[in-house]
Amino acid sequence: MSAALRIPEAVVQEALVRVLVGLGFAPPRAAQCARLFTQASMDGVASHGLSRFPRFVGQIRRGRVRVDAEPTRVAGFGAWEQWDGQLGPGNLNAWQATEQAMALARAHGIGAVALRNTNHWMRAGTYGWQAAEAGFGLVAWTNTEPNMPAWGGRGKTLGNNPLVIAVPRGGAPVVLDFAMSQFSYGRLELAARRGERLPLPGGYDEAGELTTDPAAILRSGRLLPIGYWKGAGLALALDLLAAALSGGRTTRALGGLEEEYGVSQIFLALDVGTGQAREDLDRLAAETVEALHRAERVRPDTPIRYPGERVLETRAESRRLGVPVDAGVWDEILHL
Amino acid sequence: MSAALRIPEAVVQEALVRVLVGLGFAPPRAAQCARLFTQASMDGVASHGLSRFPRFVGQIRRGRVRVDAEPTRVAGFGAWEQWDGQLGPGNLNAWQATEQAMALARAHGIGAVALRNTNHWMRAGTYGWQAAEAGFGLVAWTNTEPNMPAWGGRGKTLGNNPLVIAVPRGGAPVVLDFAMSQFSYGRLELAARRGERLPLPGGYDEAGELTTDPAAILRSGRLLPIGYWKGAGLALALDLLAAALSGGRTTRALGGLEEEYGVSQIFLALDVGTGQAREDLDRLAAETVEALHRAERVRPDTPIRYPGERVLETRAESRRLGVPVDAGVWDEILHL
Repeated sequence: MSAALRIPEAVVQEALVRVLVGLGFAPPRAAQCARLFTQASMDGVASHGLSRFPRFVGQIRRGRVRVDAEPTRVAGFGAWEQWDGQLGPGNLNAWQATEQAMALARAHGIGAVALRNTNHWMRAGTYGWQAAEAGFGLVAWTNTEPNMPAWGGRGKTLGNNPLVIAVPRGGAPVVLDFAMSQFSYGRLELAARRGERLPLPGGYDEAGELTTDPAAILRSGRLLPIGYWKGAGLALALDLLAAALSGGRTTRALGGLEEEYGVSQIFLALDVGTGQAREDLDRLAAETVEALHRAERVRPDTPIRYPGERVLETRAESRRLGVPVDAGVWDEILHL
Repeated sequence: MSAALRIPEAVVQEALVRVLVGLGFAPPRAAQCARLFTQASMDGVASHGLSRFPRFVGQIRRGRVRVDAEPTRVAGFGAWEQWDGQLGPGNLNAWQATEQAMALARAHGIGAVALRNTNHWMRAGTYGWQAAEAGFGLVAWTNTEPNMPAWGGRGKTLGNNPLVIAVPRGGAPVVLDFAMSQFSYGRLELAARRGERLPLPGGYDEAGELTTDPAAILRSGRLLPIGYWKGAGLALALDLLAAALSGGRTTRALGGLEEEYGVSQIFLALDVGTGQAREDLDRLAAETVEALHRAERVRPDTPIRYPGERVLETRAESRRLGVPVDAGVWDEILHL
């Protein structure tokens, strides 16, 4: 971790586009792909924004991600469609799948796209914001390679299978985005490198005790699923639904590859209505958020937030001050 | 807690039917309602089966649950329908909503029923098994009255909003059913009464430390959401979607009532296909389950299970030996 820079949005965008066009992206696709990486960092999620960009480029260079591949519709029936991502860029594929799920929801009230053979979608919240800003609810998830033990097991059996749920509303949507492991490998490694403790237990040490020591968790490999056995079960169920509905790979199948590519994803878009229905939703959500904000705090100086609450503020700050980026990451991007 | 009895299924069924008919249920509805309570206990979930029956009867007697009310379709568009539960029995309403979601999925590939003004559906897994046994995937959830603090807050702001996800497969389906609080009030109270510790931290004590002491958690009121802030966010998002799509009450609105009634629920049924698609799903699921079972165990004598794995076995045992029921609960039922 080196110093934090603030680089103007247009400069970041241009730098990423240059790299992507150099890799063979058609210019409009390069612009969109760059925008999604830049936006993630602008929204405060650098781990799946600029910090992840060099790894994404590496996957392209190793031939895992096909820059010019676009998803194709394999099958469909009413409000449900199955698509093949053709191993294209995961964020472009997921964006298109979300658009398609919303198109189906416009026609049928609800729409489902099951996407196989796609790649890491980067920031899950991207698609929640995409749907919410278009006035749709979204429930979407992806499977991953095995990176978490089963409950009661050792070794990597389950994916951490990130899930995103979005609720549109006037003002700011509620967008929740989380993986089934309590903390990511990236977060554990960062804390271990800095010699920091986790704020809450995040796994087991080698003696089988719950611990906040990230290095001990990395040694045991026993990352904590959210809610103990519950998150482990959720990871399994989401994986099977994603693979079954898309006709794609399970976490287990992904574990047999040299690295993670060709994952399975589900996108469910929900039409929350217009006119009176939208006003009712806005009112319900406002009342609920207000009740959260008014609740007695555990620490008087720490406000209670709803998922996604700080994003618009962080985004505005990034527009004003520049996109936050680690100096080492920025240097790496400039030399890609 | 008194001694555990085993009562033949037919005897239990008859006892419940007698009570329900006495309360004004039409005989076929009494039989179905009794069957759902009995089945929950047979499957090993007495807390939402026979142990809950006296409380259900109490709600009927207080006029919160209307025995003869049936859900009515309020609105619909394509694969999505909105229903009003008319404050009818929650388990009968949820069963019908699941049937209707599957009918929509047959016609549209996916089907969504949003149900408002309904009552506690008892065991969430009931509807997962219902869908899976009919060959459908299901994602369904309910909101509840406020019973859990917001993350960083005190007092009851969020519901624990149980979620069920079912994946059909040959042999035994995967059925996952869980609430957003790590342990239920019922579980905490039982452990506190027995002077037992929880197997894992389940909330905060009054000093603000994570603890396995159920009595301390009941005193602080700070039950742990699954995955800390993640489960709190999930509870909020599920509540808003359920209320918005059904046009029904939020958890916040439920908190303003004398007791919990008139909740909001969502039922999403997914057609996983037939023929080759079903065979593929069965194969994927079998491979994944096999990998779980083969994984190295933390405790060599404790097998790794998938969600719902023990249900069929437990059910068969209940058929053979009788329905397990606490003697005190059984006595109470006989005197209702």
